[in-house]
Amino acid sequence: TMNDQKQRLRPWRHNLHEIIYEADTPTGKLFDVILLIIIVISIATAFLESVDAFKKNYYDQLFIAEWVITVLFTIEYFLRIVSIRQPLKYIFSFYGIVDLVALLPTYLGVLVEGTQALMVIRVLRLLRVFRVFKLGRFLGEGAGLLKALKASRFKIIVFLGGVLSIVFVLGSIMYIVEGTVKNTQFSSIPMSAYWAIVTLTTVGYGDISPQTDLGRAISSIVMLLGYAILAVPTGIVSVEMAKVGSISTQSCPSCGAENHDEDAKHCKYCGAKL
Amino acid sequence: TMNDQKQRLRPWRHNLHEIIYEADTPTGKLFDVILLIIIVISIATAFLESVDAFKKNYYDQLFIAEWVITVLFTIEYFLRIVSIRQPLKYIFSFYGIVDLVALLPTYLGVLVEGTQALMVIRVLRLLRVFRVFKLGRFLGEGAGLLKALKASRFKIIVFLGGVLSIVFVLGSIMYIVEGTVKNTQFSSIPMSAYWAIVTLTTVGYGDISPQTDLGRAISSIVMLLGYAILAVPTGIVSVEMAKVGSISTQSCPSCGAENHDEDAKHCKYCGAKL
Amino acid sequence: TMNDQKQRLRPWRHNLHEIIYEADTPTGKLFDVILLIIIVISIATAFLESVDAFKKNYYDQLFIAEWVITVLFTIEYFLRIVSIRQPLKYIFSFYGIVDLVALLPTYLGVLVEGTQALMVIRVLRLLRVFRVFKLGRFLGEGAGLLKALKASRFKIIVFLGGVLSIVFVLGSIMYIVEGTVKNTQFSSIPMSAYWAIVTLTTVGYGDISPQTDLGRAISSIVMLLGYAILAVPTGIVSVEMAKVGSISTQSCPSCGAENHDEDAKHCKYCGAKL
Amino acid sequence: TMNDQKQRLRPWRHNLHEIIYEADTPTGKLFDVILLIIIVISIATAFLESVDAFKKNYYDQLFIAEWVITVLFTIEYFLRIVSIRQPLKYIFSFYGIVDLVALLPTYLGVLVEGTQALMVIRVLRLLRVFRVFKLGRFLGEGAGLLKALKASRFKIIVFLGGVLSIVFVLGSIMYIVEGTVKNTQFSSIPMSAYWAIVTLTTVGYGDISPQTDLGRAISSIVMLLGYAILAVPTGIVSVEMAKVGSISTQSCPSCGAENHDEDAKHCKYCGAKL
Repeated sequence: TMNDQKQRLRPWRHNLHEIIYEADTPTGKLFDVILLIIIVISIATAFLESVDAFKKNYYDQLFIAEWVITVLFTIEYFLRIVSIRQPLKYIFSFYGIVDLVALLPTYLGVLVEGTQALMVIRVLRLLRVFRVFKLGRFLGEGAGLLKALKASRFKIIVFLGGVLSIVFVLGSIMYIVEGTVKNTQFSSIPMSAYWAIVTLTTVGYGDISPQTDLGRAISSIVMLLGYAILAVPTGIVSVEMAKVGSISTQSCPSCGAENHDEDAKHCKYCGAKL
Repeated sequence: TMNDQKQRLRPWRHNLHEIIYEADTPTGKLFDVILLIIIVISIATAFLESVDAFKKNYYDQLFIAEWVITVLFTIEYFLRIVSIRQPLKYIFSFYGIVDLVALLPTYLGVLVEGTQALMVIRVLRLLRVFRVFKLGRFLGEGAGLLKALKASRFKIIVFLGGVLSIVFVLGSIMYIVEGTVKNTQFSSIPMSAYWAIVTLTTVGYGDISPQTDLGRAISSIVMLLGYAILAVPTGIVSVEMAKVGSISTQSCPSCGAENHDEDAKHCKYCGAKL
Repeated sequence: TMNDQKQRLRPWRHNLHEIIYEADTPTGKLFDVILLIIIVISIATAFLESVDAFKKNYYDQLFIAEWVITVLFTIEYFLRIVSIRQPLKYIFSFYGIVDLVALLPTYLGVLVEGTQALMVIRVLRLLRVFRVFKLGRFLGEGAGLLKALKASRFKIIVFLGGVLSIVFVLGSIMYIVEGTVKNTQFSSIPMSAYWAIVTLTTVGYGDISPQTDLGRAISSIVMLLGYAILAVPTGIVSVEMAKVGSISTQSCPSCGAENHDEDAKHCKYCGAKL
Repeated sequence: TMNDQKQRLRPWRHNLHEIIYEADTPTGKLFDVILLIIIVISIATAFLESVDAFKKNYYDQLFIAEWVITVLFTIEYFLRIVSIRQPLKYIFSFYGIVDLVALLPTYLGVLVEGTQALMVIRVLRLLRVFRVFKLGRFLGEGAGLLKALKASRFKIIVFLGGVLSIVFVLGSIMYIVEGTVKNTQFSSIPMSAYWAIVTLTTVGYGDISPQTDLGRAISSIVMLLGYAILAVPTGIVSVEMAKVGSISTQSCPSCGAENHDEDAKHCKYCGAKL
């Protein structure tokens, strides 16, 4: 039918699509590998440009590298638009916007007198890496991890809510206890809450630490508490991960439901034999 | 009967009860959302008031905000008393006391020349948040977490007892080893015990750290020990959480098999309806 | 028989034994509680004595408290010897030695001009606490924890061996990388190994931290490595704890073997029905 | 046959092989223990030599110890070559190269004017320890750990990739936020990324910590995020470890049931002999 013909791409556009969007053919894989290398180089230049000593000595090289990469990304962007059936859908998709954002900083830098913030946006090119890693085994594993995290999101929200409450109450207590010391670092409740987070998460920078004996005693309790608290998210994720792990890929032949246990003989939703 | 009639509230009080205590109706939900916003604002003002620079510049605004919030909370408190069947039971319940404590600091501040401690008590308003979150899915998840923590409370107490013993013995050893160094930070056993807790929990502020070679050697052993110890509470909670998470108490009416998922409708072993 | 009669204690010694060694009778429980309080006081005095400011002001009170406690412990020690059937077995048992060590420091302090180390030995009185906690529910839980730790001891030794190897190799690498910097804190391999332990265990005092870019890059890898490594002991203990948890107390009626799974219907060693 | 005779070693070489390569005979075990002691001494000397104060005072003793150990290792190396059927295979095996590398630094030090790096290579002798620990129970446990780590390697790679992305994006954000502060420690994106790793892994040296309020707010989120993230590798390894630990591949010859413990002799479901 006519509609069908419209939907189908011309041969060269179809081939281009195969190369750019898929990774089944050797050229498609090669394209992905080259793209990955360019992305890594582009991030490396953004990193090096932020190092003052490096920027001073290699300003020209960084400038050239930046423009070469931007031009290559621009060409790729237009090839992606050309070779896809529904260009608008791509342009407004997550990866489409990421691809555009990867180009803009360099061009905008000419117009707006490139600010530091603009330069840093280039780091978002990193997100492009995920497209390349869509390949192969990694996707499945990543999906497993995300699934476990997603399944435990309510538990984690409740947990974080509880932790935040503890943090605010502790911060207030420490503000009262330590706030009267001369040159105290617990100068306000938000500052004390920051300390409580640094302590409960066992990061412990040491930029703020208790100076009074009572403060140290309370801190000790907080730390031992953090010990027990630390176990909770680990427990949550472990359990969800164990569930995800033991779920077989089998789907019910009768109702199509998934997520059956590996030892299940009947579909737990409709009762049909698996 | 007469008793029943007494128990039943007049229509307007019944409606008020629905709005204030329940979250089933749209107005009830709206009330909870507004309450939540006011609580968050009230905590934010308590936080900002503790920041010296902010307090100086916005003293008037903070003062007004504080009184508006207090008046609103006061009205809410009396509405709660009016609209409930057994006011005394509410007043002396946990949340009743929390609600009262949320009001008092501002009023007392007028009488007692508001001390810092009084101001900070306002942070306890945070506890009011939990009432709002009683709704929906979160409660179930929170209950699951609490259940797992409760089930492992004896194990955790034994564990904390063991950790405290290690902390005191280690603190004493380090006091002997490091205490003779000039300007040592291990100036007493309690101080050394504080160091031991900071180290075992892997917080590691660095405000107290060993200065002698022997002290460093002992610290190294302590840290590696802490590594293994850290695993214990995680193990405890994970195991309890796995039990709570997986045990659906339902057993198959046909074959009697248990351990069905919570969303199962059919027995996964024999296919009978649950 | 005569042997039996010898073994049996006279009534008053038997009663004393009930009170001192058992906790089944009300007097027995009372004795344990009083003992616990005295132990806690005795440790508290040892702690306070180490605080210089406190020792100066309350020297007399501490001196008296110390001697009262020591005399009480001495009386208890002799009562324990008198009321037990085999005194020598008690004297050379673990708790017997702990009980003696709890007395000696004070008496030796008179003879040897009490050194600091001697004073600190009193902290070992803490070990006496464990005897009291032999009671009730805690013992079972503690046994469960110890069983899980014992079952995983080989895995933990192998793991610690691996960690130590990583620590020494990393320490050597960082010594080469950072050792040439002026005023470096990585002044020797043992010092670098100490840094590696502080970092891998995520304690992170910050008393030693890399100063060069290469050093920071290596540290970053070490920390991410430590992230993955940290998971190993937790995994070990969790798994063992889960096993211990699911093991029923049932022993085989035929061969007497234990450690059966909770869902086992036949003894896994001899095949008899459970 | 002639080939066989060639393959078989002469009696004395066979005995030597038993002693050096195996640990079944008493002399074989004794050899391993002595070797272990020499390795530990050799590493200890390398460590002590890096301590300046020690090197100055005990230069002669260290020099002699180093040469004695090197000569012993050299003799052992040649005995290993002599007593094995296929010397070349040994020489180019992993342990063969480790054994050679353990000798070279001392000899090269005579020729090349021993640099610091050369000295440190001696720490690689540590790898020789693993050969000795090939014995007994430890191998099995180590293999179990490695198996669990290997099974989860894809998940861990995906996880580390995700963490690195977060680290780079966070590093860039903090570089913008904190980079404009005077004397900031967030002087470049790589430096900020280093901070992000130090924080996410909860090491928290404190050599770089946020100075602005916004920076502290972002840090707080990062730390709470790190809390949840920390749970992921633990979950991964725990689950894999549980699988490795519990799965005995044996199935009951009578009822076909699986999941028997490794020490089971009878099927726990039907009682048949395994």
